[in-house]
Amino acid sequence: MTNATIVTAAMLAIGDELLSGRTKDKNIGHLADALTMIGIDLREVRIVADDEEAIVEAVNALRVRYDHVFTSGGIGPTHDDITADAISRAFGLECIHDPKAMDLLGQMYARRGIEFTEARKRMARMPAGAEHIANPVSTAPGFRIGNVYVMAGVPQVFQAMLDGLLPSLATGTPIHSRTVRSPYGEGDIGVALAEVQKNHPETSIGSYPKFDGNSFSTEIVIRARDASRLDAAEAELAAMIEAIARARGGE
Amino acid sequence: MTNATIVTAAMLAIGDELLSGRTKDKNIGHLADALTMIGIDLREVRIVADDEEAIVEAVNALRVRYDHVFTSGGIGPTHDDITADAISRAFGLECIHDPKAMDLLGQMYARRGIEFTEARKRMARMPAGAEHIANPVSTAPGFRIGNVYVMAGVPQVFQAMLDGLLPSLATGTPIHSRTVRSPYGEGDIGVALAEVQKNHPETSIGSYPKFDGNSFSTEIVIRARDASRLDAAEAELAAMIEAIARARGGE
Repeated sequence: MTNATIVTAAMLAIGDELLSGRTKDKNIGHLADALTMIGIDLREVRIVADDEEAIVEAVNALRVRYDHVFTSGGIGPTHDDITADAISRAFGLECIHDPKAMDLLGQMYARRGIEFTEARKRMARMPAGAEHIANPVSTAPGFRIGNVYVMAGVPQVFQAMLDGLLPSLATGTPIHSRTVRSPYGEGDIGVALAEVQKNHPETSIGSYPKFDGNSFSTEIVIRARDASRLDAAEAELAAMIEAIARARGGE
Repeated sequence: MTNATIVTAAMLAIGDELLSGRTKDKNIGHLADALTMIGIDLREVRIVADDEEAIVEAVNALRVRYDHVFTSGGIGPTHDDITADAISRAFGLECIHDPKAMDLLGQMYARRGIEFTEARKRMARMPAGAEHIANPVSTAPGFRIGNVYVMAGVPQVFQAMLDGLLPSLATGTPIHSRTVRSPYGEGDIGVALAEVQKNHPETSIGSYPKFDGNSFSTEIVIRARDASRLDAAEAELAAMIEAIARARGGE
């Protein structure tokens, strides 16, 4: 595989509630899974408060460094939803009540006989020139500006927005992986494992300790963009674990 | 309350497996809860890969900005555990096999009749001059250098290290909070809620939408370092919700 395409991404999760512990984030893990599947490498995640300075600084740091930046949170109708303002400022754009979003929301509330309050109109705000990210759950759209994708924090809405968005994104060569389970802890396998990694430089071998409350075991994950590289490394890992078992049997 | 003490913190979670989605982080939420309880404000979280450059850059950015920096992950015995090297480099210190940690681990393995391999010795590595963070689960210590606390990624070990560490930390005035549940969505309460926030500037009022698959409700959280400020804001929020209920009853 000579022409692997690398596409990178970062995530910015926004919300006081994530930093106070009140809400346990579910969007990071979901995004990580979804991006890995389609060949986008999630390289960095940041969590910041509902603080305009913090959001502006983080989004500007991330958007110049990665191909895609995904944000979650802070696009609802209440006073503490300031993501649209912060993203606009980060891009030096005016934050406007987007006309298409005003139509979309106005029609939806009219159909339901609900007043289109100032608070609800806040959900139509985005940087001038932004494109919508559809929200099939509750209508109020997310938006894309440049390489930044701004989505809701409520997991059901975040996931629905992402489902619609992903097929439109530039993706790269996916990383294939295979998991080998070792009943032995990292201390038992560490030296031999480093050898296997050295023998298979075209793969990246990760070692993940598991603790069952009593003893450690290890999950070893082999990763490569070229799936044909996985077999040889997997075979050598299997042989490594057998050799440890034999040595232990003979102790 | 005129003399509130503010103590800030950041977290750096380290590991490819968090960014690939293979492992869903549990340490961020745990740390957030624990710090909130004792009056340390968690202001920012970053997740980076097992990549020395990325770790060095993140830890140096965070340690100058916040009072405390907590890291998780990458201190095990395998080749992909590079946190000790990266933290040493961030501080411009040599990464050594700490003599006290070598004694601790050597004695533990001798007692259990297990060989103290090169891989296991990796777990004694830390920047020269670092102090230990005790590991009551599996002996291999974390470490503190400057204002950076380096802990394991396995949640049981991370939590046990943190339990021992927290009582020794400089803490601030805790933020008290009270939750008011609104059966109405954010769009219904947004305008009135912004008024309540304006009337109670000494509190911070957050609004968290809940979606049950069918309709939205809202959890409103009032926060203040001075607990005596909570009552008045809470009473006004209760009156706000009653007024909305009355208005709806009369629709």
